[in-house]
Formats: sequence, structure tokens, C-alpha cells
Amino acid sequence: MTQKKKDALPEARIAKGFRDIETAELAGLAQMLQTIRGVYERYGFEALETPALEYTDALGKFLPDQDRPNAGVFSFQDEDEQWMSLRYDLTAPLARYVAQNFDRLPKPYRRYAYGPVYRNEKPGPGRFRQFMQFDADTVGTDSVAADAEICMLAADTLEALGIKRGDYVIKVNNRKVLDGLMESVGLSGDENAARRLIVLRAIDKFDKFGEEGVSLLLGKGRKDESGDYTAGAGLDAAQIGKILSLFNVGYANSGTSTVAHLRKLFADTEISRQGLDELDGIASLFDAAGYGNDRIRIDTSVVRGLEYYTGPVFEAELTFEVKGDDGQTVRFGSVGGGGRYDDLVSRFTGQKVPATGFSIGVSRLQAALAHIGAKPKAALGPVVVLVMDKAEIASYQKMVKQLRDAGIRTEMYLGTSGMNAQMKYANKRNCPCVVIQGSNERDAKTVTLKDLIVGAQAAASIKDNKEWKEARAGQVTVAEADLVAEVRKIVELHSGQAS
Amino acid sequence: MTQKKKDALPEARIAKGFRDIETAELAGLAQMLQTIRGVYERYGFEALETPALEYTDALGKFLPDQDRPNAGVFSFQDEDEQWMSLRYDLTAPLARYVAQNFDRLPKPYRRYAYGPVYRNEKPGPGRFRQFMQFDADTVGTDSVAADAEICMLAADTLEALGIKRGDYVIKVNNRKVLDGLMESVGLSGDENAARRLIVLRAIDKFDKFGEEGVSLLLGKGRKDESGDYTAGAGLDAAQIGKILSLFNVGYANSGTSTVAHLRKLFADTEISRQGLDELDGIASLFDAAGYGNDRIRIDTSVVRGLEYYTGPVFEAELTFEVKGDDGQTVRFGSVGGGGRYDDLVSRFTGQKVPATGFSIGVSRLQAALAHIGAKPKAALGPVVVLVMDKAEIASYQKMVKQLRDAGIRTEMYLGTSGMNAQMKYANKRNCPCVVIQGSNERDAKTVTLKDLIVGAQAAASIKDNKEWKEARAGQVTVAEADLVAEVRKIVELHSGQAS
Repeated sequence: MTQKKKDALPEARIAKGFRDIETAELAGLAQMLQTIRGVYERYGFEALETPALEYTDALGKFLPDQDRPNAGVFSFQDEDEQWMSLRYDLTAPLARYVAQNFDRLPKPYRRYAYGPVYRNEKPGPGRFRQFMQFDADTVGTDSVAADAEICMLAADTLEALGIKRGDYVIKVNNRKVLDGLMESVGLSGDENAARRLIVLRAIDKFDKFGEEGVSLLLGKGRKDESGDYTAGAGLDAAQIGKILSLFNVGYANSGTSTVAHLRKLFADTEISRQGLDELDGIASLFDAAGYGNDRIRIDTSVVRGLEYYTGPVFEAELTFEVKGDDGQTVRFGSVGGGGRYDDLVSRFTGQKVPATGFSIGVSRLQAALAHIGAKPKAALGPVVVLVMDKAEIASYQKMVKQLRDAGIRTEMYLGTSGMNAQMKYANKRNCPCVVIQGSNERDAKTVTLKDLIVGAQAAASIKDNKEWKEARAGQVTVAEADLVAEVRKIVELHSGQAS
Repeated sequence: MTQKKKDALPEARIAKGFRDIETAELAGLAQMLQTIRGVYERYGFEALETPALEYTDALGKFLPDQDRPNAGVFSFQDEDEQWMSLRYDLTAPLARYVAQNFDRLPKPYRRYAYGPVYRNEKPGPGRFRQFMQFDADTVGTDSVAADAEICMLAADTLEALGIKRGDYVIKVNNRKVLDGLMESVGLSGDENAARRLIVLRAIDKFDKFGEEGVSLLLGKGRKDESGDYTAGAGLDAAQIGKILSLFNVGYANSGTSTVAHLRKLFADTEISRQGLDELDGIASLFDAAGYGNDRIRIDTSVVRGLEYYTGPVFEAELTFEVKGDDGQTVRFGSVGGGGRYDDLVSRFTGQKVPATGFSIGVSRLQAALAHIGAKPKAALGPVVVLVMDKAEIASYQKMVKQLRDAGIRTEMYLGTSGMNAQMKYANKRNCPCVVIQGSNERDAKTVTLKDLIVGAQAAASIKDNKEWKEARAGQVTVAEADLVAEVRKIVELHSGQAS
């Protein structure tokens, strides 16, 4: 064997901006995905899974936000020298799928999809280059009932996940109302496209900077604490005042009465009247189905991205506050959003196919669920059968098999270490109970069971080592024939449920 | 709006060698994965999910089979110009994870993982460039109990998936027995490495070419039907005879007696005696746990890949035959395999960490399950509430909500088409029941329910159009207040289960 030099070996490191997900988090994730799937299927959405890789031209090279063209996508050439890209969201593959299979799909087509998406970007705290999205889209209808349904779906999903009513809200706006407002402050027309973007971006910053900050961004510009300067839209006081009215509307008892109120403020253009009519149609469906302001709310401050959406837009927000690890109060804010986009497949076919959809940021939502205690507790580990005598592993294996056949999660210790290391291993696995059979027990046809959780509790209260050893807390010796029944008792005690 | 030229538009096409997975297959997949997870967790394996992308040097550029170096991996440079690769299996990322987290992991470390892997290869029929693997590995022990456990895990998993005992077998061999055989026919030493590869590859082809074909590959070489010639290992008749004895061993009543028999044939080298001792240790655990030859069998013809494995190797085979779509008899054969590989992390740390593992080819196994009817039937679609009057969509939506709240999968028709198209849509969705409320029903506070499945059966037996219309098969008008109860009856009738 040649001895390799240590410094010639590659470093075992995960790629920057990626993360490994371990067992406790995965258990929570699996449960969460199953709950979401259940609600989406009840609404009649069908599952679809498209591949992670697509031809670059079929996927489109651009992320939805048009202010960042060409950036953010992992692309490369395959063996045939065709350019391929990793999907950066689930909407671009949906467009390809719908265009490719248009004739045979039921129309409207409701589909849900979830899975990892990839961004070739500089990662930051909590910002990863692979993360999971969970999308629902209804393709092939411009009915506001489709938009309304997506909002109700979002509300029902959050409640199914254990978020109490009042701890979340689905906010609904219509980009046409914003477009109308732009027109009424003199920002219509192609020549004002750049300024409109600045204004939309400023509105989108309301949660972060408040009215004063947005005011500066709409006017002369804003300098942040670090001294960085963001250029403003250059609007005058009257224009700024009109736009800021978006944030001072409040809401009435029901969605339709909120819209009636909005008509007094924003109905001065054709486009905004159209937007308000759509909002009224949506709100009347909320009223009919009994979704009040405590669940879904018309809110004119919602923007959702930049040039992408064409009509109703939605934002799912968590409204409760929690203490972060650093003692600071944290508000989770947005955990998902979406809206209507009417050119899903036109880049392939030239044909307009209206669609509306909603996307959940899965990791963010899971983090929020963890904070409200909706996350599952760290899973109880397996029962561990210790190996006291290597010549007897066949009989230890037999015990393992009996326990597994009874549905009890069990393993035999597979290492080569002695008793102390085996106990340490069992503790590391969060094992509720070890099974011990030394020669004394074997001769007497018994096994000793050690309840590690009761044992640990006792150890915390007993200071004296001698007293501790004599107490043998959590330890019991039972007949071999009672192995399964006795282990089950201990496991059920700690899992709080019948297995 | 500018009119784009049709030929300037990109073609909506999925990348070659990739596929979309639609709702019925996904439902079967989800169920299958949950079953496998359940068994693996009962065995004490922990879930782990590593990212799809890794640094190329951390992943290793090579697929396990060393006769195809450097090929088959999707690689590219990221924004920081670091080389990254898509994972080509789940073992290479496991090695990176274990090396990176070695100190804090319990040892031995049992983990399971599943997810898509990617190969930059020319696709073929049934060979895709993205496919799913489901792996279980035990890291950090050289105990044969770990190997034995993996085999029992494989057997239990196949049975949990609905494959009857006798319809599958887990075959177990030891590469050391093969190595010993090479030595005894004079093929040891570095200078014979290339010929050993040819021999192993020939042995691996037994299922395909039979004894005669393998004989040619071990000797002068073999010409196939198309005239392509494969060079042989150039062995003489005595050498060939000795190697072919691998296929003529048969098996005894138990694993340990099979091994006792093998000792008479293959115990003429130190390395093969070591391999036989390991097999004996494994087989005695099968015997103790009651896994007979009908589930797990010692079989010296199993090779599993080329240079990768270092000890015990396993192969999970389905033994039943089915008729293919073309009427031909198909045997599914291998649906998974694995073995012991003792240099999992040494490429990072220089340190030997023994490991043993098993990998399921998920798509292949799912296809097999479909053939034995273990796959779920095409899922029943949602109940569809028709839109007879657009002004009334709020009240239709209310019905939808009532049905969904009762746990019944329901949607309102969201398109703009008339009654006929709506019925066609409902049929396309595999809808069990449509809900109809026209003005007559509304005035009478009733709804009409149309059982589409009973209706379709009746339509098939009633030839006369007039008779058909009068029979109104599967159609019933009920009070609005009974909507949920009456729809539930129809849905339960067709799903064969309470909702």
C-alpha cells in the first residue's frame, strides 16, 4: 500500500450555499409535505414531477424578476453539447410541460408540484442555492374563481399545518390597481417603465423601511445606515402622497366592503376599475365561502415581484411574533405568494394561456412551524440490543428480529467496542431502552432492560455514585419470553403512543 | 403587441433521456417510498438528505465502475468558478458527509437516503439520465452482522411492498471467494488485473448468455448475433471448467449447509477461505433469524459490478415471470443490490472506514410492482361542481367548500365552456360524480347528482338513444341539505372505502 500524503487528499466539504438535512428535520418535512399534499388533492389538484434538468432554451434563461436578467441559473453542456439548465423554479418547467402536452391535458389544468430548485447565486444567511418550493397552479382559465380558490387553498393549508386562525393572513391585491395608480400619477407609457419599476420596488419595501423610507425611495432617494445610497423615483409630494395612500386604506368587515371602500380612492382609471371589479368578484367568493378578514384580506400594499404578474396577486403572511435565539422578537412574515400571469406558454406557442398560481417557501414555513411547536419532537431512537458476547450475536439478532416483527424500531450494536461505548452509542441514538443479556441472564433465560430515559432522569437527581449504582434506576430483568411485551411498555411510555 | 414569428419560438420539449412523472405514477411512488421508509426506520436506519450538487473534487469524478473513468457525470463551473457536479449516486455524497461529520456521528452509523441521481450518458429504452435510488448503508463496522442485516432488510422490504415469498430472492456471495478462484486458476497479481476484469465481466453475463456464452467469453471470445466480437480472457479448458463450477453449485437446505458444501469446492486459497468464513457467519445469522433459502440464498454466481466491492455482495432478484405488452415473457430480475466496500472515506482522510450498503432501483421496482397488481388503481378524480349559470358561481363555490370541508376531493369547473364540454372535462378527470344546479333545481332548493361511473356502465349496455335519455342512469336529484351525504355515498361506492 502506498501512503498518500495528507495534503494531497481532497477536502470533505459540502458546497457553499448547500446543506445536508438530517433525520429530525426530514421527519418534520415529510409530515409537512404530506399535509400540504392532502389539502391540495382535496381541492382537485393533480401531482406532477418534472425533471431537475431541462434544455436551457425550453426553460428560459431568465428568472422571473426582469431586473436580474441572465443571472442565477446553473447551466452547462451535456454529452451532446446541448445547453442544459437546472430548474430555478417550478413554473418554467410547468410552462414547458403544458406547451408540450397541451392537447391531451384537461382544461383548466390544476397541478401541484414540489421539489428542490437551484439558484447560482451568492448564498447568504438563510439563503441557500438549493431550496424547496411547493407550487399549485391552475392553467387555462381567466376566471377569478380560480384566483379565489388558490387563496382559500393557501388559508386551508396553513390551518392544516397547525397555524391557528389569526396567526396568519392571506393578503390579496390586484396589479391592475397598482397599474391604474401609476397612470393616475403620470407614470404610464413605455417611457416610464424604469420609473415604474423603482416605484413598485419601493412599495415592496414598506414592511422593511416603513412609510418614511418608502417616501424617500419614491422621492429623492434613501441613504441607509451603512451610507449606501438608493436613487429615488423622483416623484413630487402629491404623487408620493397618492401612492402612500395604498398603505392607509385599512379593511372593512368583509372583502366586498373593503373593495367598495377602495373604489372611492382608486377608481380613477379604466385599468384600476377593471382591477377593482376582479377584486370584487374574488372577494364575493370569499364572502360566500365564509372566509372572513381573519383569513383572507384585500390589501393594496401587496406587490409580489416586479413585471411578472398581470392581475390578482397573493401573499401568505404569518402574523405572530416569536423570540429568536438572540432574544430579539422575530416576525416570520411571508411564507408564500403568487398571482395571475397570463403568458405561461406564449413563449413556446405564441398563444395566450392564462394561469394563476401560488408557491410556498417550504424551508421558511418549516422554520416557522418549528417555532410554534408544530414540529415533531426529536424522534425517539431505536431500541439497541447490546452485544455482551460476540459468540452469541446470532441469539442477539434473533431478539432484534422478534422486536422488529412486533413493529418496534430495533437494532443490534454492530461495532466492536465494549459495554461503556455501547451505552454511549445508545444514548447518542436517543435510544429509549437497551436490551442486555450476559452469561448470567442467558443461563437464567432472562434479559435485562435498561430504560435510558428514566435512567438519565434518576442520574440527574442522585448525586452519590454508590447510591446510584444500587438504585439501578430504570433497570429491570425479565423472562426471555416477555421480551417484546416489556420492551413495548418502555417504548410506549416514552413515545406517548401505542406502536 | 409585436407579433413574434412562429419559427423564432423555442420548441417545448423535455430534454432527451428525462421524463415527466404524472399523478397516478406519483401516487404509487409516494406509497412505495413510505413503505420502504417504514421498514428502514424499524431497522434503526436514519434519514439523510444531501444536496444534488457537490464540489466535483469532493464527489469524486468517477462512477464506481472503473472501466468507465471520467464519463457520465454532469459537471460545470458555478458563479465562483468552482467545479461542481450533479450526484451520480448516493454513496459518493455519503462519503463526503461521513468524512465531514465523522466525529459527531454515532458509530456505527446507519443511514438511508433516497432521491434522484443523474448520469450524463446516452439514454436508451428504459434508461434515463435522471432516476431514483433508495439506499441504506451501515458505516463504521466490519461485522458480518451488518451485512446480514442489510440482506434481511432487503427481504423484509420486498415483502412489505407486496411481493410474495417465493417471488423474490436475495442472493449473497463474497468477492473474496471470487478472488480466491482467480488465484487458483492463476490470475492473481497486478499483471493479471485486466484479465480478471474480463473474467468478472463474463461471470456477470451468465443470466444473459448462459453457460455457453460465458464459456466463450472466458476462452477465445464471443461473436454476437450482429457479428460484433468480444475478446475473451484466453483461459484454457481446465480454468474455464473451474470458473463455470460457480454456476453449478446449487444450494442446500440452509445457508450454513450451502457454505459447508462450498468449502469442498472453493476452499483452496487463503482469501477464499476467509470469504467462506464470512459467508458462514452471515448465513448463521439468517438461520438464527429464520430467513431460509426461500428468502435469502448463498449464490456464488453473483458478482455485482467490478472493482468496487471488497467482501460480501448482495443482489435482490424478482423471480416471477410476467407477460410484457408484446406478449413476450419477461423476468424482472435484479431490482437492487449492494455489498461491502471498505474505503468509503479513505479518499478524504486516508483512514479506512468499512461500510456495507444496499441500493434499490426505484423505477424498476415500481414497474415490477405494477405488473403484480400491487400498484394503486388510477386514482379516482375529484367531484366536479358544474357551472350552469355564471352569475351563481358564489353559490357553486359554497357547495365546493361544503364538500371539501367534509374531506371530499372537489372542484368547481373553472373554464368558460358549456355543459357538454364540462361533462367531457369531468370524464377526463376521472370524476366519480358531477353536481348540477340549474335554475329549476335552485328554485326547488335541490341539486342533481350524476354518477359518471354508473352512467358510463349503463351507456355501454343501452344502445337506444331515447331509452338512454329516459333511463337517466346514475342520476338523482336530492335536497341541497343532503348534498354532502349523497355525494359521499357515490364517492364511497366507487372508491370502495370510507373517506
